[in-house]
Amino acid sequence: MKNQQIVLSVRPDGIPGPEHFSATSSELDLTLSEGQIAVKNHYLSIDPAMRGWVSLEPNYLPPVQIDEVMRSAAVAEVIDSKHPDYAAGDFVYGMFGWQEYCVCEPNPMMRKVDPAHAPVSTALGALGLNGLTAYLVLNELAHIKEGDTVLISTAAGGVGSIAGQVAKLKGCRCIGLTGSDDKVAMCVDEFGYDHAINYKTSDNLEQAIRDVAPEGINVFFDNTSGAIADAVYPNLAMNARAVQVGTAAISSWEPETPTGPRRDRHILTKRLTVMGFVLIDHVAQMPAALQQLGSWYSEGKLNYRENVTKGLENAPQALADLYKGTNTGKQLIQL
Amino acid sequence: MKNQQIVLSVRPDGIPGPEHFSATSSELDLTLSEGQIAVKNHYLSIDPAMRGWVSLEPNYLPPVQIDEVMRSAAVAEVIDSKHPDYAAGDFVYGMFGWQEYCVCEPNPMMRKVDPAHAPVSTALGALGLNGLTAYLVLNELAHIKEGDTVLISTAAGGVGSIAGQVAKLKGCRCIGLTGSDDKVAMCVDEFGYDHAINYKTSDNLEQAIRDVAPEGINVFFDNTSGAIADAVYPNLAMNARAVQVGTAAISSWEPETPTGPRRDRHILTKRLTVMGFVLIDHVAQMPAALQQLGSWYSEGKLNYRENVTKGLENAPQALADLYKGTNTGKQLIQL
Repeated sequence: MKNQQIVLSVRPDGIPGPEHFSATSSELDLTLSEGQIAVKNHYLSIDPAMRGWVSLEPNYLPPVQIDEVMRSAAVAEVIDSKHPDYAAGDFVYGMFGWQEYCVCEPNPMMRKVDPAHAPVSTALGALGLNGLTAYLVLNELAHIKEGDTVLISTAAGGVGSIAGQVAKLKGCRCIGLTGSDDKVAMCVDEFGYDHAINYKTSDNLEQAIRDVAPEGINVFFDNTSGAIADAVYPNLAMNARAVQVGTAAISSWEPETPTGPRRDRHILTKRLTVMGFVLIDHVAQMPAALQQLGSWYSEGKLNYRENVTKGLENAPQALADLYKGTNTGKQLIQL
Repeated sequence: MKNQQIVLSVRPDGIPGPEHFSATSSELDLTLSEGQIAVKNHYLSIDPAMRGWVSLEPNYLPPVQIDEVMRSAAVAEVIDSKHPDYAAGDFVYGMFGWQEYCVCEPNPMMRKVDPAHAPVSTALGALGLNGLTAYLVLNELAHIKEGDTVLISTAAGGVGSIAGQVAKLKGCRCIGLTGSDDKVAMCVDEFGYDHAINYKTSDNLEQAIRDVAPEGINVFFDNTSGAIADAVYPNLAMNARAVQVGTAAISSWEPETPTGPRRDRHILTKRLTVMGFVLIDHVAQMPAALQQLGSWYSEGKLNYRENVTKGLENAPQALADLYKGTNTGKQLIQL
């Protein structure tokens, strides 16, 4: 059986795009060994973290190799199974890659998705890694509590939009930073932020944040690093918690580490706690988080946008577009 | 009665020294109100934090005002008391300032010192703020445990030398950074560090640290910030804890915040926790910490150096000398 695939063909120096990937097809043997399953992908996830996955810089996962199928989360349908927990017709979430089919052994990050509960694509967003990241950062690391002022960078994105809503549902005041006036409106109208600021058009972002949070920020959900974060640190309140979830505003960390204002004096005098979050550390907390997120979703309390592009061949361009900051909501490829 | 005092006369732009202080004397009325005590200072503490106390930059205490007596920890003898907890002849630790006498009301940071337990001057060092800082940073914030590799900057100083010994007593491996070959020898021979590095003569400090800690640093006790800390961050291990205790390597934070390599990628991918420590937040943990430090001291397990300079008038020069990094051990003024 032919399996259409997208492989990494050239290692990017910075942002990945179509020039770094090639479409190919390979012969797939669907004869399964004991414990294996075969799946057909329905939706692929396009994620900011992919830039790190194709880079040789130290990361939390080994780099995707040249000529290897691009690593990607996906929702797929089981078409054959020699594993007792899975049967043909089941929908599953897993790292099935940019390809039509995948044969693999289930692992702890894989999980079944119930199509009766919500559209299966939500397993790649609000009820998947994005929702889990938003929920676990705020609850397990930042320990948000009622009355906290929470600031979220990339506030209208796949993670940020859920984070804003989770913080509001927990009784926090929410401020979003985002890159266009349309997204500012979306943050306030759809995702319930108390305030949103267009960091691209703000003359003085540090002051603009101070204007809407004169008593300071208690929790900083940082997806960007760089100049955006530099405007937030002077606004952090005593005992604030800052969680580094991504570094989207930094195009490359090598060969020279980019410089910026030192934060040590803020950290010391304001007794900040700055933490790094990587989702795969928190597998044990995921079931409870998904249950809470699923309840909110089914009660209509989570607004969630998807950007669905059809066709495996469009995945590389969709990835490049992601870093332009023009997308709204979770970017998916439908096969 | 005449009270000799040293007041802040000129606000320093950077490091304070004799040119910023004036000797004066004022008439002191020893008639006490109910609840007050009068004390005679025996030892004054000369501390790196004093630079922050005389600066208008935001800090954890309000700045010392012009013509105000210089703020200072001291060990004093009670000469008169209208407070039920204190009697003439008691020795007390408190913020009595650069002066001969002080009339004040006891506060929670003040405490009695037992001259039978240890020389009273130790209340300004190993059994005082330095020891408490060393102990509480390592135990309450960094949560050191047996087998951790702990790196301490300003390793031979008043805080660092105690921190190294506390970490060793808890079963850690200890690496010290210090600024002269004499201090390197002192770190290893007197304070028990496993390794010490002269950061001033090291060609490549980052590599020198890697050579002695190839598996990485688990706990970074950072008294310096700046280029020294920049060499440590790439050496931090997964899940390392970094505590900002001081920023001695940065001469000024204003008007422009100094820049340096961004640390966000280290924080994210290595899941670091970076925290700020200010001792006055930890009053509740002090009695237990002092008890442990006192036991170790009386069992001869804590090596401790004092640099005693006689004469109130020498305090400003002693403070300036502190920032030259040539002192060994805790700097005191004896009255």
